[in-house]
Amino acid sequence: MYVVKSPLPDADLKVVSEALQGALLDLVDLSLVAKQIHWNIVGPRFRSIHLQLDEVVASARAHSDTVAERASALGVPPDGRAATVASSSGIKPTPAGWIKDEDAVGTMVDALGAVITRMRERVEATGEPDPVSQDLFIGITADLEKHHWMFQAENA
Amino acid sequence: MYVVKSPLPDADLKVVSEALQGALLDLVDLSLVAKQIHWNIVGPRFRSIHLQLDEVVASARAHSDTVAERASALGVPPDGRAATVASSSGIKPTPAGWIKDEDAVGTMVDALGAVITRMRERVEATGEPDPVSQDLFIGITADLEKHHWMFQAENA
Amino acid sequence: MYVVKSPLPDADLKVVSEALQGALLDLVDLSLVAKQIHWNIVGPRFRSIHLQLDEVVASARAHSDTVAERASALGVPPDGRAATVASSSGIKPTPAGWIKDEDAVGTMVDALGAVITRMRERVEATGEPDPVSQDLFIGITADLEKHHWMFQAENA
Amino acid sequence: MYVVKSPLPDADLKVVSEALQGALLDLVDLSLVAKQIHWNIVGPRFRSIHLQLDEVVASARAHSDTVAERASALGVPPDGRAATVASSSGIKPTPAGWIKDEDAVGTMVDALGAVITRMRERVEATGEPDPVSQDLFIGITADLEKHHWMFQAENA
Amino acid sequence: MYVVKSPLPDADLKVVSEALQGALLDLVDLSLVAKQIHWNIVGPRFRSIHLQLDEVVASARAHSDTVAERASALGVPPDGRAATVASSSGIKPTPAGWIKDEDAVGTMVDALGAVITRMRERVEATGEPDPVSQDLFIGITADLEKHHWMFQAENA
Amino acid sequence: MYVVKSPLPDADLKVVSEALQGALLDLVDLSLVAKQIHWNIVGPRFRSIHLQLDEVVASARAHSDTVAERASALGVPPDGRAATVASSSGIKPTPAGWIKDEDAVGTMVDALGAVITRMRERVEATGEPDPVSQDLFIGITADLEKHHWMFQAENA
Amino acid sequence: MYVVKSPLPDADLKVVSEALQGALLDLVDLSLVAKQIHWNIVGPRFRSIHLQLDEVVASARAHSDTVAERASALGVPPDGRAATVASSSGIKPTPAGWIKDEDAVGTMVDALGAVITRMRERVEATGEPDPVSQDLFIGITADLEKHHWMFQAENA
Amino acid sequence: MYVVKSPLPDADLKVVSEALQGALLDLVDLSLVAKQIHWNIVGPRFRSIHLQLDEVVASARAHSDTVAERASALGVPPDGRAATVASSSGIKPTPAGWIKDEDAVGTMVDALGAVITRMRERVEATGEPDPVSQDLFIGITADLEKHHWMFQAENA
Amino acid sequence: MYVVKSPLPDADLKVVSEALQGALLDLVDLSLVAKQIHWNIVGPRFRSIHLQLDEVVASARAHSDTVAERASALGVPPDGRAATVASSSGIKPTPAGWIKDEDAVGTMVDALGAVITRMRERVEATGEPDPVSQDLFIGITADLEKHHWMFQAENA
Amino acid sequence: MYVVKSPLPDADLKVVSEALQGALLDLVDLSLVAKQIHWNIVGPRFRSIHLQLDEVVASARAHSDTVAERASALGVPPDGRAATVASSSGIKPTPAGWIKDEDAVGTMVDALGAVITRMRERVEATGEPDPVSQDLFIGITADLEKHHWMFQAENA
Amino acid sequence: MYVVKSPLPDADLKVVSEALQGALLDLVDLSLVAKQIHWNIVGPRFRSIHLQLDEVVASARAHSDTVAERASALGVPPDGRAATVASSSGIKPTPAGWIKDEDAVGTMVDALGAVITRMRERVEATGEPDPVSQDLFIGITADLEKHHWMFQAENA
Amino acid sequence: MYVVKSPLPDADLKVVSEALQGALLDLVDLSLVAKQIHWNIVGPRFRSIHLQLDEVVASARAHSDTVAERASALGVPPDGRAATVASSSGIKPTPAGWIKDEDAVGTMVDALGAVITRMRERVEATGEPDPVSQDLFIGITADLEKHHWMFQAENA
Repeated sequence: MYVVKSPLPDADLKVVSEALQGALLDLVDLSLVAKQIHWNIVGPRFRSIHLQLDEVVASARAHSDTVAERASALGVPPDGRAATVASSSGIKPTPAGWIKDEDAVGTMVDALGAVITRMRERVEATGEPDPVSQDLFIGITADLEKHHWMFQAENA
Repeated sequence: MYVVKSPLPDADLKVVSEALQGALLDLVDLSLVAKQIHWNIVGPRFRSIHLQLDEVVASARAHSDTVAERASALGVPPDGRAATVASSSGIKPTPAGWIKDEDAVGTMVDALGAVITRMRERVEATGEPDPVSQDLFIGITADLEKHHWMFQAENA
Repeated sequence: MYVVKSPLPDADLKVVSEALQGALLDLVDLSLVAKQIHWNIVGPRFRSIHLQLDEVVASARAHSDTVAERASALGVPPDGRAATVASSSGIKPTPAGWIKDEDAVGTMVDALGAVITRMRERVEATGEPDPVSQDLFIGITADLEKHHWMFQAENA
Repeated sequence: MYVVKSPLPDADLKVVSEALQGALLDLVDLSLVAKQIHWNIVGPRFRSIHLQLDEVVASARAHSDTVAERASALGVPPDGRAATVASSSGIKPTPAGWIKDEDAVGTMVDALGAVITRMRERVEATGEPDPVSQDLFIGITADLEKHHWMFQAENA
Repeated sequence: MYVVKSPLPDADLKVVSEALQGALLDLVDLSLVAKQIHWNIVGPRFRSIHLQLDEVVASARAHSDTVAERASALGVPPDGRAATVASSSGIKPTPAGWIKDEDAVGTMVDALGAVITRMRERVEATGEPDPVSQDLFIGITADLEKHHWMFQAENA
Repeated sequence: MYVVKSPLPDADLKVVSEALQGALLDLVDLSLVAKQIHWNIVGPRFRSIHLQLDEVVASARAHSDTVAERASALGVPPDGRAATVASSSGIKPTPAGWIKDEDAVGTMVDALGAVITRMRERVEATGEPDPVSQDLFIGITADLEKHHWMFQAENA
Repeated sequence: MYVVKSPLPDADLKVVSEALQGALLDLVDLSLVAKQIHWNIVGPRFRSIHLQLDEVVASARAHSDTVAERASALGVPPDGRAATVASSSGIKPTPAGWIKDEDAVGTMVDALGAVITRMRERVEATGEPDPVSQDLFIGITADLEKHHWMFQAENA
Repeated sequence: MYVVKSPLPDADLKVVSEALQGALLDLVDLSLVAKQIHWNIVGPRFRSIHLQLDEVVASARAHSDTVAERASALGVPPDGRAATVASSSGIKPTPAGWIKDEDAVGTMVDALGAVITRMRERVEATGEPDPVSQDLFIGITADLEKHHWMFQAENA
Repeated sequence: MYVVKSPLPDADLKVVSEALQGALLDLVDLSLVAKQIHWNIVGPRFRSIHLQLDEVVASARAHSDTVAERASALGVPPDGRAATVASSSGIKPTPAGWIKDEDAVGTMVDALGAVITRMRERVEATGEPDPVSQDLFIGITADLEKHHWMFQAENA
Repeated sequence: MYVVKSPLPDADLKVVSEALQGALLDLVDLSLVAKQIHWNIVGPRFRSIHLQLDEVVASARAHSDTVAERASALGVPPDGRAATVASSSGIKPTPAGWIKDEDAVGTMVDALGAVITRMRERVEATGEPDPVSQDLFIGITADLEKHHWMFQAENA
Repeated sequence: MYVVKSPLPDADLKVVSEALQGALLDLVDLSLVAKQIHWNIVGPRFRSIHLQLDEVVASARAHSDTVAERASALGVPPDGRAATVASSSGIKPTPAGWIKDEDAVGTMVDALGAVITRMRERVEATGEPDPVSQDLFIGITADLEKHHWMFQAENA
Repeated sequence: MYVVKSPLPDADLKVVSEALQGALLDLVDLSLVAKQIHWNIVGPRFRSIHLQLDEVVASARAHSDTVAERASALGVPPDGRAATVASSSGIKPTPAGWIKDEDAVGTMVDALGAVITRMRERVEATGEPDPVSQDLFIGITADLEKHHWMFQAENA
């Protein structure tokens, strides 16, 4: 009933809204995973990684907001609820409990890697139907790849 | 292996850590629910409630961080992962899709009410075993009850 | 008609809301008394006390807002109108006109002393029925006792 | 005994100091009335008006300070005590208890209207005896009429 | 005579400069229309929409500056004079006088919709001849579509 | 229908509202003219004047907002639409295209001179009917005459 | 040769420029006198008055800049050179060397009193020929009378 | 002779003032110990721990100020002189000279552990006689236990 | 040995990493050239250009950091050492010694022009293999073309 | 009578205090001369030099304060009164009236040159008797020589 | 074992490191003494001196950090532990308990005087072996002598 | 032709300008080397050293600007071009490619050590001919030796 009119034709909208919804779940989960490790990390690099993780959290929260509001702007209600995130995120489950610093770094390398792969597919998929959404995905990918490099460099 | 030594005896620790873990899940979910409505609300009061919800998100995020780090400080690894939140939060599931402003307000009144009831039980339970944790719950309750009033006043 | 539902049972609410309403009147009056002296003080210590009084005003205004909104959050409409303050404040009337600096300090020692005595009674009274409100009174008392010391030290 | 020498002759001073004292009482009361409604307002426009009222409070507090210190600068001790405000303000008493948002707006339209009428008389009365005080009244009137418009527009 | 040398060949420059000049007029007019409604809006949602409109004004002013300076950087003098705006803007004329809040929202939905449609055509047209200008149009479109959603949500 | 009640009698209101409406158009046009030259100026003094013009834009935008909201506060809906500005501004049309720095300065000397002359007439006209509006015109004139001096000094 | 064209006719300009030039000398000297005492004051109130004097310096410097630039804006080159200040200021010479705190306060009461008397004459003189300059004098007088009160209150 | 009147009866005051004085010495020493290690630490984790230690210093300084001023507010002069700290602090002496990073972390774990144990006893002791002081001890304990966790996590 | 894994296939990576490495050298050299002229410029426009050059330095430094970290994120170690810059920058050598302002502007027009030409080729080359890197080049080109316009306008 | 005890023996103090007093007069005069030209400058470089002069004013004011307070700290009351400045400054009198930009620059080159020569003599004279004062003169000389270069570069 | 290599030869290093270590103890003790009096001062000048003392604390803390890190930079581990400060500071012990304001000022005059005398000896001793450390001592002396003057002026 | 007149005689100028030019090259190269390692570092201490290196970059950039502008102020055009830096810097070439964290620290220890040795020679050389330049070298040496200590402590 309460509709926001989309600037995109239906076929294009379908592609773009799936990309946005998928990105939203990945990014919300990324923020939860990074916070989880932020709280549970132990080891000599504790403080350094603890702070670095909060920068990932800040990035992931900001990007998830951008992506969700983009969906709304295209007339598609976004879904970022806990249950949807838990069932459909592209990041594989993190184990509970204390986590040693080097494992923490490895977990983040994997989590970021998984999200980046999917994000690059979204860049590919949306260029034609909506260059505006594509541009958001490009910016998010650039930022995530920067975080990815830093965690890889950390474990080299 | 990687232990943080607790300042509390085991029996007290059990009570307090359950309270902290429960609070963490409620607060993470509160932040996700408030964001969900922030993105999906429609109606004449859109802008006003949209902004108000982001203040709830900011409160819930800050409180969840405090509570999780308090658990760590007591030697208990906190669990704020999406699946745990989805299965054990004290807030009842929010429906997907656009949500009319008055329903949004009603949903928030209910969600905050549910969290407050549990938080007051935690205040009660932790006073004896750990007045330090109790003081955090008291501060969080004060803040949530302020948000609760505002949404009730909004729907009066 | 337009009710905010209280988290407290009726008997507890009665005790707590009387404490909050009494504190509100004391704090609004404290802000008015401190401003009155801020404007009327004369003598060699004029500038020093003039500035110090504005810090009391800032404290009293912030605390009165906290206390009034706490009453609203408990479902009780606060009353901070001029006539109610004039008739029911716990501070005894200040004389009109210029006031010599040492008298100004003495007046503030008395005014703060009167409010503190009543505030400590509120800490006592509310611990059982509502530890959340008690915590606010404790924080306010700490702050007022700090101001009280400073004015006493000033007149030693 | 502790006199501040007035730059104005006695006759002029009488006119100007009455205007300043009257304005002080109106403005202190305006700040108390706006805070009272800030705490007691309910209804769908709660948040919007709640915030707007704090801007009136900030204006009224700043203007009352300017006016009181102007009286001191002219050698006349200002009187902003609760009892004087309660007995001599130009704003008619506000009812106690919760107040519906549209009534809140109406009350503010009336309160601001009453103060503005008197403030314009003060602009008129003080131009000859003291253009410096008149200039303050002109600035205050401009600001109050802006607030007045906003509340009227709100209820249109 | 006083030329800035363009990095683009003539044919490309023609397409791009027409897009930039058209965007400039739309954006200057959007800032004027939003200010006009900012001043003339009345109704229960006055304050909320009044503030929201100033965010559109800020967006439109910033984007118009970017677009005009991009034209200069390409060697084409931009034209943002009142008469050119009045005659060539893509937004249909706004009626004079007070405007009810729901009409204000509707007017903004229409104005933003009109500008967005043209802006998407500019994104399309400039991708080949000048991806740098295209990137500006993409960013502007993203921002305008966000504003568009908010006003639509407001009127749902 | 949606009226804001004026504090002025009808005859006075007519004079004052014409002054405000005229000032609004001059100031909006001044902001557009200054931006136009800001974008089109060339020559050795480019950077210096380019920056100076943005200070005129900021002044003109701030003053136009003050003047328009003053009209609203007096109950008269202001008109700052592009077409009205284009047809009724007191500034003579600026030529399109690049403009040499010394011509830019000359154009600004003329534009500011024209607006100042009319603004001084408004100071004259409104002193009796509304000293509050007059005070705004006085402040705006002071600011514009400062800008006027600077551009004259620049071309001396 | 390098003229700034005055918006005032010659007779008016003569009155106003004399007022501005006189005010400039008084204000520059006030800033020098206040700094001199700021450096030389001794006694139990040293710190309090030392800081208070720097607020007078800041006021005097800001006002002297405003007044000098107003003269330039009216086409009259201002003269604020040391020799002119030394020979024509309205403040009587301050003695060299250390100055006891109560004498420092007394000296400031006299210096401010002298400047205020002349400033009020300038308010009187300029109202007719240039209400814009008069408005500056009114604002400066308000500020100086506030400083004057504070030093008088200090010595009461 | 120069007394500040205590709000507490003598027996209560004795308990509370001993707790405050003991806490003051522990906290001043904690700030000195943390600074000592901040300057002398060496090893691969130098920079990370060096920065972390300054956060402990900032906490310890702020808490010592709060505790000392609380003693003054209760009418008991605090003693934070070097000799008293050296003879009565609860932290065992730190060795002089360079300190390897892992030893630095271990030293901080011990120092914080010792202070926390005593601080929890103070929380216990003061709840009855003075809930206001107890509340300060609770807040300080929360903060120290957070630092304690971080250094333990660092060495895990 | 210490590898960062690239998200790009080898062939694409070769193209993109050459573009990034080339851009890095151009941008580092641009920052050194602009600083060199910032220090050596003389002539009537000294201050204006001196300041403008520091804005180019700030742009060039920020962009070089972005580009180098992008290379690292793609798994390719960037080379921004003095010798590599000296031998491979796209900007032709600047003469040593004082430089007249108009020559300074001309030198900057040439230097920026050279870098822009190469940067546009990089936009072209990277669109296919890596739209994320392309987006950085587009943003950098936009900024450099703005600086280029300003120096051209300055010399017109 | 009210003495500040000097850390220097009498002979050294004589040398150092003369240097400080001389520097004070030069710096106060420099601030007045730079402001005088700031107000009276005309010509195409008006804005650029007008702003540059205010940076000299800020430097000169800050340095004069440092120097005067250094004299007080050495037990010698400084003299910065208008008459002393007028009679004993090392800067030769500036002519009254409008001043062409190139003459303004020349005047500043001369004024700064004169002050620098004397300041270097003070560096020489004070090294032996008081390296603390010498260090202030060294810092002031560095700053003045930087301003001197800029004005020379401007006129090259 | 874990050495930082000194840039100074051994003989020079001995002189300089003794100076640095001595200065560190004086400065840490100065910060503790000033805080002690900050908490214990009473009398009519309470507030003024209470605030002034915190500025000494801030200075002493900043300087002690600079001096200790300078020792580390020269390869000598600094010792700022409570016991070393208590046994070797150059400031004579302060009595415990409340202290009247004039005695507080006198105590600070003595304490600063003692530290300054020793600091000037360090300036003398280090000029030859290490002008870098000497420069720090010069700057610290300048700051302490400024504080010294202010307390002397206060008690004159 | 376009000369800035030097305050130094020729012989002195020769010594000082060589010192400044040498320092400029060392500092520019230090900034480039530190950035190079900032981008290429890998290993468990990645983040900590990556951030620390940017503080060296900021120091080196600020100092190189100071030194170059000092040369200009002495009338000698500074040379900070890439080729000059590459051929004449006092830092030995850094290898290209990824660099392990401990090697990164070692490289910085060497680079800082080399620059410090030369900087101390400049302090020695310039004391006689120009104490103003010497003071800059002293300050730069202090800062570099602080960075040097930190990297040494890091590798201990």
